[in-house]
Amino acid sequence: MIKIVAKNYVKADKVNDYIELAKKLVKATNDKDAGCLHYQLYQDATDPQVLTFLEEWESDEHLKQHMEAEHFKEMVPALSEFQEKPGELNIYQVVK
Amino acid sequence: MIKIVAKNYVKADKVNDYIELAKKLVKATNDKDAGCLHYQLYQDATDPQVLTFLEEWESDEHLKQHMEAEHFKEMVPALSEFQEKPGELNIYQVVK
Repeated sequence: MIKIVAKNYVKADKVNDYIELAKKLVKATNDKDAGCLHYQLYQDATDPQVLTFLEEWESDEHLKQHMEAEHFKEMVPALSEFQEKPGELNIYQVVK
Repeated sequence: MIKIVAKNYVKADKVNDYIELAKKLVKATNDKDAGCLHYQLYQDATDPQVLTFLEEWESDEHLKQHMEAEHFKEMVPALSEFQEKPGELNIYQVVK
């Protein structure tokens, strides 16, 4: 099991556009992608320009398949157009 | 429900010390703190110095109680001694 934190910094005037498109990516991912345990968009409670996908996948392979899916390849570049600066992606493993 | 990403950058020679103490905080929190839906330590798959608490709480009030608990007040300052630079704390709400 792996967890992903994909943190994005969105232009102030593009927050609504970002959310609208991101919701489509969330729906497509939850509907279609095998091994998806959790995939949801979150907004920082104090800074609305910070919009982060918190994800959980059964395996690296399932994550890889997600990143090769049509909906991912179509929407992720479009989402990046709304970003103010590069985001941060962390792929995490639980510490046992 | 709120989710927390508490990302920490730990000194290279203090990673094991950090993990050892953090595990005690994880155990105490899961054992004692009401409203704790998830509270676990994760390590970045590519950078072992990035050690992050991914948390989920029923409410702000439960989070507040956690931050006033003895185990929190005792261990969090001690953990910060092992840090290389200030961490990042994001409190997230789901985007519906």
